[in-house]
Amino acid sequence: MSNLIETLNWRYATKRMNGEKIPAEKLKVILEAIQLSPSSAGMQPYTVFVIEDQELKEKIQKVAYMQPQIAEASHLIVFASWTKITAEHIDEYMNLIAHTRGVSAESLDGFKTSITNGILSRPEEDNAQWAARQAYIALGHALVAAASEQIDATPMEGFDANGLDEILDLNEKGLHSVVIMTLGYRDAENDVLASAKKVRRSLEELFVTL
Amino acid sequence: MSNLIETLNWRYATKRMNGEKIPAEKLKVILEAIQLSPSSAGMQPYTVFVIEDQELKEKIQKVAYMQPQIAEASHLIVFASWTKITAEHIDEYMNLIAHTRGVSAESLDGFKTSITNGILSRPEEDNAQWAARQAYIALGHALVAAASEQIDATPMEGFDANGLDEILDLNEKGLHSVVIMTLGYRDAENDVLASAKKVRRSLEELFVTL
Repeated sequence: MSNLIETLNWRYATKRMNGEKIPAEKLKVILEAIQLSPSSAGMQPYTVFVIEDQELKEKIQKVAYMQPQIAEASHLIVFASWTKITAEHIDEYMNLIAHTRGVSAESLDGFKTSITNGILSRPEEDNAQWAARQAYIALGHALVAAASEQIDATPMEGFDANGLDEILDLNEKGLHSVVIMTLGYRDAENDVLASAKKVRRSLEELFVTL
Repeated sequence: MSNLIETLNWRYATKRMNGEKIPAEKLKVILEAIQLSPSSAGMQPYTVFVIEDQELKEKIQKVAYMQPQIAEASHLIVFASWTKITAEHIDEYMNLIAHTRGVSAESLDGFKTSITNGILSRPEEDNAQWAARQAYIALGHALVAAASEQIDATPMEGFDANGLDEILDLNEKGLHSVVIMTLGYRDAENDVLASAKKVRRSLEELFVTL
């Protein structure tokens, strides 16, 4: 079995954590894996909150069904996607490409027109859904990165997104919380899932080969 | 720099592939990483098509703006999420948990009620979006797994989803194509992106630390 598959079998949705802090260098790997995550057209249409403040985690726990791992985590990661995609976002992105690659803005005109036509012509709600999906790719990256660093991670949709948006003032920033993830260490003694067998559909069920 | 970060810097959205086939054992690692991907409530509400047939890839290329990497790939992966979540899906899932963990169906009644109430009360369109997002976590897993096996991969939203649904008869199966990914080897000579600097928002831009 490959190391990666062993690693992914080791990880599970940790429901109890022990409060221990994760080292800065391991957090950095996880955040860089998020940063390196691909996204449609390369836009990265989200902002990611990295929350270590205990009081803030406990406030967020209250809008997340009091799930214990939020307060017990070392860090809580909030993936907040852009609620609107604007011409300014596209301009900033073009500037970033030009700056990173040392090319002129004009040389990007074709690409700019293509993504402007593609994105700005869609209804706002479609773009919000599109942005949210890109954040989920980043979540997938983060989960593998955490496991590869032997850090436990729990992806969670079980929270009141509007309540969380309010706590973090996300509306005013043009953001909406879509998924959250705790990072820390499992409290295996108090987490019945720590020793439970992983449940997955079989390869035959999940895949169709053509 | 960690191996993982080196690996993620190595990967890029490959626009030209060289037609070479990827070894079965590497494909298996990528598929198992998809299988091990977490999902909301553990439902895995998607089916994944693994397409090697050249004629079929070329047919799909026609509904995907004739992007060359589709025909040049070793395999094309199609993530198709469930268009509806039904009571039968939940029953099957409960049976899978009971079977995997050797517990009685009755012991799962609380969990079953909770996900039934959560999922079946939502509008169909919300569940379809929810299912699609879960497939994107699996895409994130697949992209890291491919890179870790030094296999090139290109995530793609640029295709006519209804056209692809028709080719694969997805509607009849209660499925809808949400994102696709080619697997293969880069044709670095013919792909200008192979040597282009990776463009990413800075850590300071992308993250907010609290």
